[in-house]
Amino acid sequence: MIVRDFNKLKNTDKSVSDARWNSVRMLLAEDGMGFSFHITTLEAGSEHTFHYKHHFESVYCISGKGSITDLATGETHEIKPGVMYALNDHDHHTLRSEEELVMACCFNPPITGNEVHREDGSYAPAEENA
Amino acid sequence: MIVRDFNKLKNTDKSVSDARWNSVRMLLAEDGMGFSFHITTLEAGSEHTFHYKHHFESVYCISGKGSITDLATGETHEIKPGVMYALNDHDHHTLRSEEELVMACCFNPPITGNEVHREDGSYAPAEENA
Repeated sequence: MIVRDFNKLKNTDKSVSDARWNSVRMLLAEDGMGFSFHITTLEAGSEHTFHYKHHFESVYCISGKGSITDLATGETHEIKPGVMYALNDHDHHTLRSEEELVMACCFNPPITGNEVHREDGSYAPAEENA
Repeated sequence: MIVRDFNKLKNTDKSVSDARWNSVRMLLAEDGMGFSFHITTLEAGSEHTFHYKHHFESVYCISGKGSITDLATGETHEIKPGVMYALNDHDHHTLRSEEELVMACCFNPPITGNEVHREDGSYAPAEENA
């Protein structure tokens, strides 16, 4: 059994920050669960465009307020506590936070922890980060 | 892109209750993500013994207070907001809530939605619920 505390991990190298977001990696590929699990915080008033071409991701809103736009359809959905979006079609999307968003994220295949967002908003396929 | 709201799903057949717990299935096997994702609520003062012999599960505490005991080692860990446990060894465990616990749960392989807890605390292997 693995037991980890977000409030401890956020002060370690399991906490990764980039342009106006932070992600605490609670579970990574090395943990052998077959998925990774992260708590991601997006600063109030920030906007993020991602395109996980090689991963499925689900994102559940724990707190905050914002919206997500599906860039293929132009459709925008409200994000508030209790709302989850799942990128089951590797959807190219823009996420906006009106208030700081705290999100619980699952990735399949699991993130190794070494990925960086590439210019196209994707992470490299799992085999390139192994 | 799938977008779902816990506060709407909790009044549908995606909300499953058993002895002093409720689980809202936000993502199931049929969604094709390779994992399932549930928001599970455990009543204050309840105790639950589970043994997912055929699944990996991670559980992140969004709110509430309780504890988990690893029945193989006898070790008990505090559960509070920000704490996650991951049953990476299909760990037989007892979960107790002092205050109502709201937990974000990921299962691999994904739950189909047709499982019931068997007498030994497990769910049947995925192929038996397909």
